[in-house]
Amino acid sequence: MNLGVCSSCGKRSPIYFRRYSGVKLCSTCFKGDFIKRVRRTISRYELLRYDDRIVVAVSGGKDSLVLLKVLYELEQDFPKSELLAASIDEGIDSYRLDSLRTLRKIANALHIELHELSFKDLYGFTLGEVVKLGIAKKLGLNPCTICGVLRRKALVTVARRLGATVIATAHTLEDVVQTYLLNLLRGEKNIRPIGLRREAEDVIPRVAPLRLTPQREIALYAYLEGIPFQSKTCPYTHESMRDEVRNFLTLYDYKYPGSLYAFLNMFERILEKIPQPDEVNRCEICGEPTDRRICRACEIVLSIKSLLKN
Amino acid sequence: MNLGVCSSCGKRSPIYFRRYSGVKLCSTCFKGDFIKRVRRTISRYELLRYDDRIVVAVSGGKDSLVLLKVLYELEQDFPKSELLAASIDEGIDSYRLDSLRTLRKIANALHIELHELSFKDLYGFTLGEVVKLGIAKKLGLNPCTICGVLRRKALVTVARRLGATVIATAHTLEDVVQTYLLNLLRGEKNIRPIGLRREAEDVIPRVAPLRLTPQREIALYAYLEGIPFQSKTCPYTHESMRDEVRNFLTLYDYKYPGSLYAFLNMFERILEKIPQPDEVNRCEICGEPTDRRICRACEIVLSIKSLLKN
Repeated sequence: MNLGVCSSCGKRSPIYFRRYSGVKLCSTCFKGDFIKRVRRTISRYELLRYDDRIVVAVSGGKDSLVLLKVLYELEQDFPKSELLAASIDEGIDSYRLDSLRTLRKIANALHIELHELSFKDLYGFTLGEVVKLGIAKKLGLNPCTICGVLRRKALVTVARRLGATVIATAHTLEDVVQTYLLNLLRGEKNIRPIGLRREAEDVIPRVAPLRLTPQREIALYAYLEGIPFQSKTCPYTHESMRDEVRNFLTLYDYKYPGSLYAFLNMFERILEKIPQPDEVNRCEICGEPTDRRICRACEIVLSIKSLLKN
Repeated sequence: MNLGVCSSCGKRSPIYFRRYSGVKLCSTCFKGDFIKRVRRTISRYELLRYDDRIVVAVSGGKDSLVLLKVLYELEQDFPKSELLAASIDEGIDSYRLDSLRTLRKIANALHIELHELSFKDLYGFTLGEVVKLGIAKKLGLNPCTICGVLRRKALVTVARRLGATVIATAHTLEDVVQTYLLNLLRGEKNIRPIGLRREAEDVIPRVAPLRLTPQREIALYAYLEGIPFQSKTCPYTHESMRDEVRNFLTLYDYKYPGSLYAFLNMFERILEKIPQPDEVNRCEICGEPTDRRICRACEIVLSIKSLLKN
């Protein structure tokens, strides 16, 4: 099969075909284009400011390592900005240890301060304990739900300690669209834009610079940049509702390329028109923003602790 | 397995288990409940008025026959309202002829005037011709798209001729949610509530009294009322985008009962907050409301006619 030449430089052989636009890119142009898209995403949604103190949430998986690498490149142009990395160790035995090792190596090579915080230090228990002691089951929660909520909270804690002005997460195009569709199918009351900068007093905004970047391009970029893959899968992964939504959307977007972008653009155009409340409600325990009286994280931590005592 | 007794009458044996609510119903209570839900849907969304001249769009399939039967029952309480039926023959050989025969029998038994209009009479061609002559393919449209757009237009034409104040269609809970999700995945610019009464000058509103009724309950009601099933499948059915969305949503709602309701309620709560334009734009050719200069139906008819000439 003759693939012709790269649509961008018109010289080298393409290694990537972008199905929804018909563009073919060589590895050099692909890498350039990849970074350009993240830069454009940041500027289109005004995700970052020139003087931000950014904490990048890194798990050690390819998405967050790629985010760290790209933000590192982009940040060179903004001498007043600062880049830090934070990693939350939820305590899943060997799974997390492996990825932490990779992470430390990469942060070190890029001279980025890496701050680590564990569930054990922060909450007094590990996710491993919660699962093994049958507490997750007793609470009727799957481990992914507990992990997601508590990691998010732990991240805010580190970010506050570090005086961050913004948290950057590695949510991808797929993550964002999956979450929107899940929100609809679960009838979530307050659907808010995901990974966009929402300013409010004493709230550290969370942004997702990879929100327009599809998974396959992240994987390819990681490969081309020699970023090591996390080969192990989390032993607790079975958040089935998201799995089904993910499978459907993956197949659908494969058959009708561009559908994820269409969904994201359309849905966010709709969300934009909905007035968002100015006032932020606060959790009675931790003071972080929440729609409830007590935030979901504090609620889960309290339930786990009371079950651990008995 | 002991199913216990009907949750409603507490006496008879249940024949239906409503998974999302845990309610078990006997056949008598199911039928009563079925009609009650349609009545509640009509009143919740103010779909019909006491003095409406209603044209029911009937295809001869079970959904539209059930709608006709239920509206017939409900309409007895509103002597000032009138009920008519309209059927569009798109010209798919034996497929349509079968369902038309059933339809005529039922309309006759209920003493409801049935008005028939064919693509051939209205547009000068049948859908069968358009497919057989390869015109659909040349236009890059699948037969379902052509059929859907032109049936909708034909229906408005009959309704105008009959002086209808409202058109009732048999869109079900599944149809509505599928269409919303398809709208998102296709990036449709103007997503509007489906099957809700939208009044505008010189526009006949379209309403869907079965918009909260799931398919399986319609099938059961049809069975219990002895409404004959259309056994043949349309020979052109292969609207694959909708098929995939349908399959996903069906499986998802089976696993997580109530998801379709959650989606519908959530999404419509969002749509509600979006201001709808008061002014209606009109097609330059037919004068019917459209977001474009020339409506999709007129555009398709023109393209087909020009290809038929050559």
